[in-house]
Amino acid sequence: MLQDIAHNSIGLVETQYYAFPQEAGEFRLSSGQNLPEVTLAYETYGQLNPAGDNAILILTGFSADAHAAGRSKGDPERIGWWDSMIGPGKAFDTNQYFVICSNALGGCYGSTGPSSIDPATGTPYASRFPTISMEDIINAQHKLVCWLGVTSLAAVSGASMGGMQALQWLVSYPDMVRGAIPIACSAKLTALALGINEVCRVAILADPDWRGGEYYGKSVPQSGLAVARMAAHLTYVSAAYLESEFGRRRMENFSESARDLGTFDVQGYLRAEGESFSKRFDANTFLTLFQAIEQFDLNLHEGGLEGALARTTGRVFLLSFSTDWLFPPYQLAELEVALLHVGAPVSHISVETPFGHDAFLTDWTKIDPLVRAFLDARP
Amino acid sequence: MLQDIAHNSIGLVETQYYAFPQEAGEFRLSSGQNLPEVTLAYETYGQLNPAGDNAILILTGFSADAHAAGRSKGDPERIGWWDSMIGPGKAFDTNQYFVICSNALGGCYGSTGPSSIDPATGTPYASRFPTISMEDIINAQHKLVCWLGVTSLAAVSGASMGGMQALQWLVSYPDMVRGAIPIACSAKLTALALGINEVCRVAILADPDWRGGEYYGKSVPQSGLAVARMAAHLTYVSAAYLESEFGRRRMENFSESARDLGTFDVQGYLRAEGESFSKRFDANTFLTLFQAIEQFDLNLHEGGLEGALARTTGRVFLLSFSTDWLFPPYQLAELEVALLHVGAPVSHISVETPFGHDAFLTDWTKIDPLVRAFLDARP
Repeated sequence: MLQDIAHNSIGLVETQYYAFPQEAGEFRLSSGQNLPEVTLAYETYGQLNPAGDNAILILTGFSADAHAAGRSKGDPERIGWWDSMIGPGKAFDTNQYFVICSNALGGCYGSTGPSSIDPATGTPYASRFPTISMEDIINAQHKLVCWLGVTSLAAVSGASMGGMQALQWLVSYPDMVRGAIPIACSAKLTALALGINEVCRVAILADPDWRGGEYYGKSVPQSGLAVARMAAHLTYVSAAYLESEFGRRRMENFSESARDLGTFDVQGYLRAEGESFSKRFDANTFLTLFQAIEQFDLNLHEGGLEGALARTTGRVFLLSFSTDWLFPPYQLAELEVALLHVGAPVSHISVETPFGHDAFLTDWTKIDPLVRAFLDARP
Repeated sequence: MLQDIAHNSIGLVETQYYAFPQEAGEFRLSSGQNLPEVTLAYETYGQLNPAGDNAILILTGFSADAHAAGRSKGDPERIGWWDSMIGPGKAFDTNQYFVICSNALGGCYGSTGPSSIDPATGTPYASRFPTISMEDIINAQHKLVCWLGVTSLAAVSGASMGGMQALQWLVSYPDMVRGAIPIACSAKLTALALGINEVCRVAILADPDWRGGEYYGKSVPQSGLAVARMAAHLTYVSAAYLESEFGRRRMENFSESARDLGTFDVQGYLRAEGESFSKRFDANTFLTLFQAIEQFDLNLHEGGLEGALARTTGRVFLLSFSTDWLFPPYQLAELEVALLHVGAPVSHISVETPFGHDAFLTDWTKIDPLVRAFLDARP
């Protein structure tokens, strides 16, 4: 499934950090609160043209960092999470486009978030980090993109929370977006997704190391984070994928009498996923971004979903996955209908795949030709 | 949706307890271990006929007790969990049948389980409670049923883990079962179900009050149990049900800035479900019965699934629910195929319902006429 990265690779890249200029004042959030300092982690691939209009902005999902393509300079074994799609000659072709990937505000991979130092106190924000909305996340990106010299975006694209950001770009900066490829996302979470989120949230809060979010410098709520990730991870894959990949295969040396440990491979796989995540992710960021995702609802705009998307001028290409139960294809069909109604050029393809939500990573060969066709057809 | 229990009610009932006679010796488990003392909690409704062959055995799901019908004598507000289906003139008609409901071995509602006193130590078994299989659960029921004077079962029926028990009756005591109605169950859990179980298990183990299962007399792992139940509960309902029942309705007095608390009704509903469950259920029983459910796999029998069911002589009526994602209809279709191959009279109806797995409780009006038709057609 993984592409041969020896070919078409953009090579070593280094994550950059853009600190908003202090003279611009505080960064105003949609809640009315301000952030005195904002830094965004980002990477760029390819060259911006003199007109500043050949840029493609890649938006991260919930747990991804800004390292979307190439090998990390500090750790060459670390290949970008969407390296399959970004590079010279690839779907997001860095020979043609200036590709930017920015980590989300509120995150824990170099962008300002709850683990950042609050200049007012000299200690991490922790529970005092303000509420962040999807609008805030893309408003911060907008500043970054403008500072980079971009005048117009050939495309914005991302999956999951990244797709929500792409939609928010259409709402907030319609004149700047010539194309959008929101993938496996929606204008609002389903009730089931809200329910699963609550399982994750309560799992973190149940960890005594959570301490109301004030755990920096102490033991972190790792076991709660692991449980949360296990629950969330199940929504990223499909029942069919788990069945064909793991079925009821036993772990080696399993013990049927071990009541406190699952004996099946799929259970070991999930535990490993939870454990590795819990070592690299920040619990306050988890809850901060979950909140942004849950509160995101374009239907709440004046005029509803159509009102929100009414100013869309770019072309929109919606991609859903047939077995995605976190963002079922019908949710993208709802977006398609709204975009049709407001007169925006829109296509929606529900890709047949057994891989579920994560198909944008694991079944990328199916979306690669579709994304190429969409981008090539641009005026 | 709830039936008018003023009519056709069997009135006040009291849970009974059957302690296996000591002269019969220890109860041998399929693991090879023995239980020195076994008690089963049960209720009966209706009268056994002189031939002892008008009995219907109702099998409990994972978290149900033996109180399946009528009002509890000790607490008349407590109506049996399947009172909609059991009573005079109801689908399981107590004017015709002697209906028995037995709580599972390993449970925490009066049947011997991890919270029972180990006669060897005078303290609860806790982590020393042996591994229990689905076979052990129904072997214990078999002793109860025989002691009650039953010679032949007109039907065995149950949903979820209760359906697995019904299948195990067909495998272990085929000559005693004239009819079986396994509902929303399967010959084995899917990989997705195993994965969700692991989320629940790890959530319990992550609770510092778990103490390796040695928590009796101390604080119990309530927060872990609550998270586990929240995750499990989502599998009992369908996405469509959650969407229509809750959608994205907000809680009253919600605060968008409350990051550590979901603001949607569906989230409050789940938390309440988790909390109430955590006060009434035993964590060791949770893991004991989960293990029995996970290890249950009729395909592992000699001759596979068909080999397991080969001695079936009774008629079998399989009921699945169109929106059940814990036990998808295809799993009951697999059972149907195997039963056809071994020449057993079998029907399978996949009931169209938005309610998901719990439709056997919440959409009982749809299965009521089907169960009546099946039972009435008995020779």
